[in-house]
Amino acid sequence: MKRNVLIIGAGGVAQVVAHKCAQNNDILGEIHIASRTLSKCEAIIASVHEKGAMKVEGVLQPHALNARDSAAVVALIRETGAEIVINVAQVFVNMPVLEACIEAGVAYMDTAIHEEPDQICETPPWYGNYEWKRRAACAEKGVTAILGVGFDPGVVNAFARFGIDEFVPQVESIDIVDINAGSHGRWFSTNFDPEINFREFTGTVYSWQKGAWQENTMFEVGREWDLPVVGTQKAYMTGHDEVHSLATNYPQADVRFWMGFGDHYINVFTVLKNLGLLSEKPVVTAEGLEVIPLKVVKAVLPDPASLAPDYVGKTCIGTLVKGTRDGKPAEVFVYNVADHKDAYLEVGSQGISYTAGVPPVAAAILIAKGVWDVSRMVNVEELDPKPFFEVLDRIGLPTRVKDATGDRPWNA
Amino acid sequence: MKRNVLIIGAGGVAQVVAHKCAQNNDILGEIHIASRTLSKCEAIIASVHEKGAMKVEGVLQPHALNARDSAAVVALIRETGAEIVINVAQVFVNMPVLEACIEAGVAYMDTAIHEEPDQICETPPWYGNYEWKRRAACAEKGVTAILGVGFDPGVVNAFARFGIDEFVPQVESIDIVDINAGSHGRWFSTNFDPEINFREFTGTVYSWQKGAWQENTMFEVGREWDLPVVGTQKAYMTGHDEVHSLATNYPQADVRFWMGFGDHYINVFTVLKNLGLLSEKPVVTAEGLEVIPLKVVKAVLPDPASLAPDYVGKTCIGTLVKGTRDGKPAEVFVYNVADHKDAYLEVGSQGISYTAGVPPVAAAILIAKGVWDVSRMVNVEELDPKPFFEVLDRIGLPTRVKDATGDRPWNA
Repeated sequence: MKRNVLIIGAGGVAQVVAHKCAQNNDILGEIHIASRTLSKCEAIIASVHEKGAMKVEGVLQPHALNARDSAAVVALIRETGAEIVINVAQVFVNMPVLEACIEAGVAYMDTAIHEEPDQICETPPWYGNYEWKRRAACAEKGVTAILGVGFDPGVVNAFARFGIDEFVPQVESIDIVDINAGSHGRWFSTNFDPEINFREFTGTVYSWQKGAWQENTMFEVGREWDLPVVGTQKAYMTGHDEVHSLATNYPQADVRFWMGFGDHYINVFTVLKNLGLLSEKPVVTAEGLEVIPLKVVKAVLPDPASLAPDYVGKTCIGTLVKGTRDGKPAEVFVYNVADHKDAYLEVGSQGISYTAGVPPVAAAILIAKGVWDVSRMVNVEELDPKPFFEVLDRIGLPTRVKDATGDRPWNA
Repeated sequence: MKRNVLIIGAGGVAQVVAHKCAQNNDILGEIHIASRTLSKCEAIIASVHEKGAMKVEGVLQPHALNARDSAAVVALIRETGAEIVINVAQVFVNMPVLEACIEAGVAYMDTAIHEEPDQICETPPWYGNYEWKRRAACAEKGVTAILGVGFDPGVVNAFARFGIDEFVPQVESIDIVDINAGSHGRWFSTNFDPEINFREFTGTVYSWQKGAWQENTMFEVGREWDLPVVGTQKAYMTGHDEVHSLATNYPQADVRFWMGFGDHYINVFTVLKNLGLLSEKPVVTAEGLEVIPLKVVKAVLPDPASLAPDYVGKTCIGTLVKGTRDGKPAEVFVYNVADHKDAYLEVGSQGISYTAGVPPVAAAILIAKGVWDVSRMVNVEELDPKPFFEVLDRIGLPTRVKDATGDRPWNA
């Protein structure tokens, strides 16, 4: 049983996390939001109050914090009395925040893997480069650390575990498919920070197939998927965090991640990449100004948060598990459909931020209740998925399954 | 009769002008090259000597010059004793250099219309905004000023005049078509300064049709052309200098300019333009750096001069004149075909620079000989085209005609 939440970060996902924590503050207790820029925390708090999101009267407080400074994070944890830290800051601060939680003996979670700013796409399994090196320290101190508990990675890992446990005990493949069939009405925009978005696609695409890491390039391998609600959509094999833990926990299965991209996105990405405009290395203009092209691209693109009011349509993200059961072929697709406009009306954010921000709050609720307070470092597929789905059903991201017998809620 | 040439500018076109002046220094006398950056003049001079291009022993000398400073240009003209100025610097300095030539009483020529850095695509006719306002001053001082005497504008204006005079006296339309069917082997590059190249296509496309200025947008009007040597090629109606003088001198004809673009160029241009990366207005990065996107695009693109060694293939640029002769329909296509590799082997430049740099040297030779030393400001279609074609034939850009009776040299 733990109480009081410290949210680190004040971007689009933090906004969703804050709203959802507020809606559940009877369970979670005090809510603190910390970011380098205090005014961004204050803007989120104003938005929470505007929607009247606090379930019961309570603390909702902003803090200025440099999260790269582990000692400062420890001090803020102690000052606030937070027992649960939800880290949704830029991925460059994961390790100092994790260190602080181990030091302070409180629960940690994040939604994406740690990255160093000057390195793109390190050797697999990615978790082995940073996070898993702190497994022993977590176990020794009895610290609960849940890695990658957004939607993907996160909920899709639980979908995989559930699909295997309940439908396909002899698993042969796990395919995660992420389709955003929404429309923001702009000529072009990324759905989250363009710098992070483009970094995700400029490196090697790792997948786990036939018991080994396979390497491809982005947009090299594509196929069409016929999915509930969003219909037939083309998706491309993409490097993604959850492949790296699922391949470790289910080495007997092929593990792949597929992300949907329209031809327009691919064209813009290809032009920018081939011209050198996605480079994180500086160039010098004819006038002698040193500038990083990717940061100029970010400067001319729309702020992803600005898309929310006009965003319409739905996302479908799920995990297809295939293999055999009792010697016979078996498969199941475990998935969620979310709606951009519903997300905006509820928490003032678009659907991509919503699907990423709701799951860590569900995990926080399970830690607060002791259900997931496992006193060690885990990836989501190592936890019982059913209580997770129950909370997600209640707080906005219902889980469904589709198999040969039909399409229905996971617990129907 | 005039002697001694001052070349202003030290870019790709200036390199060609210098080589061609050197090859004809028995007629032209001393050759001086001036640019803000002395080392660029020195590099051109080294290249001339490397090719052994000087026809007779003589002066070939570099000078540092700020061409925006009209008084400095006058001083250099007097110091060098130059009687012919070939201005192939950036188009932003045309007016101060022209003023200097009027002041010093020497012949002036350029290859593109004057532009102010902060204004794109001014009202038609473009020459009326700056150059033609100095017509009276040229006439008064007896100064020969030949505007726009590159290939297009320049040679194509002479093609129009020749086509009308010799084949189609009742002219109804003049269509200039510029096709570069060469290949530089890069994923993408502009053929000259990307900043100037993209500026040319971000404004209104003016054409003269049915006795009035028509406005279109870039890539709005396209059609296929079947041309000698390069075959069938798609070209788009484009705003271009020569439309503005030809429409004034032949108001009874429709005057249009067509430039060939592959789908790949159009796609890259469209992506960059729609994202805002071709803007000449500054943006501010998340880190607070103020930067002009177009200058970053220029910084990541290949230096056009670097394309020359690998450039292969041909250009075809010509003027299609249509109308009637003796009451019967008549038409002629007057054109030149140039070869990128030949240009590189001869003067170390690619074909686009070659076609732009050879014509002003032909004009200089005609001024030196007194043939075109007309003591007033003119556009090229106001001059007798035949002596021009004779010199161009001899120095590397032969003129051909194609009509119902066949395809042959202009004087066959």
